[in-house]
Amino acid sequence: MRIVVLAGGIGGARFLRGLKSAAPDADITVIGNTGDDIHLFGLKVCPDLDTVMYTLGGGIDEEQGWGRADESFTVKEELAAYGVGPGWFGLGDRDFATHIVRTQMISAGYPLSAVTEALCDRWQPGVRLLPMSDDRVETHVAVTLDGEKRVIHFQEYWVRLRASVDAEAVVPVGAEQAVPAPGVLEALAEADVILFPPSNPVVSVGTILAVPGIREAVAAAAAPVVGLSPIVGGAPVRGMADKVLAAVGVEATAAAVARHYGGGLLDGWLVDTADADAVAEVEAAGIACRAVPLMMTDVEATAAMARAALELAEAVR
Amino acid sequence: MRIVVLAGGIGGARFLRGLKSAAPDADITVIGNTGDDIHLFGLKVCPDLDTVMYTLGGGIDEEQGWGRADESFTVKEELAAYGVGPGWFGLGDRDFATHIVRTQMISAGYPLSAVTEALCDRWQPGVRLLPMSDDRVETHVAVTLDGEKRVIHFQEYWVRLRASVDAEAVVPVGAEQAVPAPGVLEALAEADVILFPPSNPVVSVGTILAVPGIREAVAAAAAPVVGLSPIVGGAPVRGMADKVLAAVGVEATAAAVARHYGGGLLDGWLVDTADADAVAEVEAAGIACRAVPLMMTDVEATAAMARAALELAEAVR
Repeated sequence: MRIVVLAGGIGGARFLRGLKSAAPDADITVIGNTGDDIHLFGLKVCPDLDTVMYTLGGGIDEEQGWGRADESFTVKEELAAYGVGPGWFGLGDRDFATHIVRTQMISAGYPLSAVTEALCDRWQPGVRLLPMSDDRVETHVAVTLDGEKRVIHFQEYWVRLRASVDAEAVVPVGAEQAVPAPGVLEALAEADVILFPPSNPVVSVGTILAVPGIREAVAAAAAPVVGLSPIVGGAPVRGMADKVLAAVGVEATAAAVARHYGGGLLDGWLVDTADADAVAEVEAAGIACRAVPLMMTDVEATAAMARAALELAEAVR
Repeated sequence: MRIVVLAGGIGGARFLRGLKSAAPDADITVIGNTGDDIHLFGLKVCPDLDTVMYTLGGGIDEEQGWGRADESFTVKEELAAYGVGPGWFGLGDRDFATHIVRTQMISAGYPLSAVTEALCDRWQPGVRLLPMSDDRVETHVAVTLDGEKRVIHFQEYWVRLRASVDAEAVVPVGAEQAVPAPGVLEALAEADVILFPPSNPVVSVGTILAVPGIREAVAAAAAPVVGLSPIVGGAPVRGMADKVLAAVGVEATAAAVARHYGGGLLDGWLVDTADADAVAEVEAAGIACRAVPLMMTDVEATAAMARAALELAEAVR
């Protein structure tokens, strides 16, 4: 079975671990969000791709969900001693090596997809990890800070400000000019199932869908498309998805997110048992819906979510 | 008193520490060798400049004479885990930060001289440290390895091979097209004394002199020019200077190195007391010469060497 997953960072990575456990023989292609990429200290940092790679490759800091296990911060401390920031982005020494290798390969002319494949040679994530695009896309957020309108990088909004102010607009800069990475459209066309994990529907899955051709390929795919709600009981399970949903005028409810994706894209949608009363509303939008437990508390619980998504895909096929 | 010093790495840095102790009120400008610069992992590494900066700024690994004190090697280990080398060049985590800042600033358009000044803002070396040139110069060495003629980077010759094969030629690639960095020629013209520390006469001081304009400015300077022999008793005090001296057809003796610089450049030359019999030969070449202890065993011994050099400068003025 060929499964294609559109994944963001922590939520996507944890879901993928459950999916691999639920479908150990499946051929899984991950289309990773690169809209949260950022250039720091002259290095290209791809947080979502790395979170997927480290999580599936056994290198992740399990507790925080991003960055490397057993990490140290000597380089960052030294950069700070030179007065070079930002200090709010937590790049550890092990993580730095990844960005140094990536930046060196990109400077040598390799596209991000080839670089990602080379990095995965080490990590052996057990999936085929493709960036959504080889072109530079970096999401920015319009905010008002101290009465002044500003447009800041998504990471500054998310990591430094912790989404503490309203996102007035979310703009994936470069997305309109971006081209899907090699293999992305082919994987979608040949998929048996396409899944949207409980990743952020705006800045993760939404950014992937913003690359011209990808939304169309998902909609046109022969495979059933099934998503899992990142909103449980009217709030994001983790992260600050409600803030960026508000920016695009979408309520932070399991049903509203399903309608945001739309029946033209989604064939099936899983909501948490806490949101069982949303099932009828989602189905009224032409999307098959089931309520199952959606808390990724451990690999087994996550595998059960993945199985439920695959079952729903079979049911709507 | 304005003192200008043409310095390589470890020997130059240790001499400068002694000079600062001997002449605490002097205005010292260091023209640093950049011919041993190397690009590693996409980063610009300037070993000699950094050795001077770390040594005078209190950050050096005292025992090995290069690199940072209290260093760790996490980034390097991680790069190796990605299969990315070279493994033979010892870049530590603290050191990496310096190269990351430097590379980022150079990418942003700053010349190396401005970058060096910015790095020195942190280290406060107590001297004005100028790279010999803002242009890229990298010394290469012609060798025969396994019967095959090859041209390798100086660092590969020095660090990986430990000068274990003959250097057939030493080529400072880029030197002919290089221009002295801002301030270099002015410092030489305005100097009260110009010193050549016991640095490598070929790949350190020799490379600085290979930048068009610098040799001429030293020769034309009103200031006396005094050097200290890096060869004691027919062998280099440290390093492998004999190997690169052979490549330029110069015997590894204190007198031969003085004649190599020549009476047109040098006004005075210090040899070690072990080489007292070389004094007459050096003076026959038109260079005032004295024999004094030249082992930089500690700061006090090194300060005595610096005082002897300044006294010789006064004597020949």
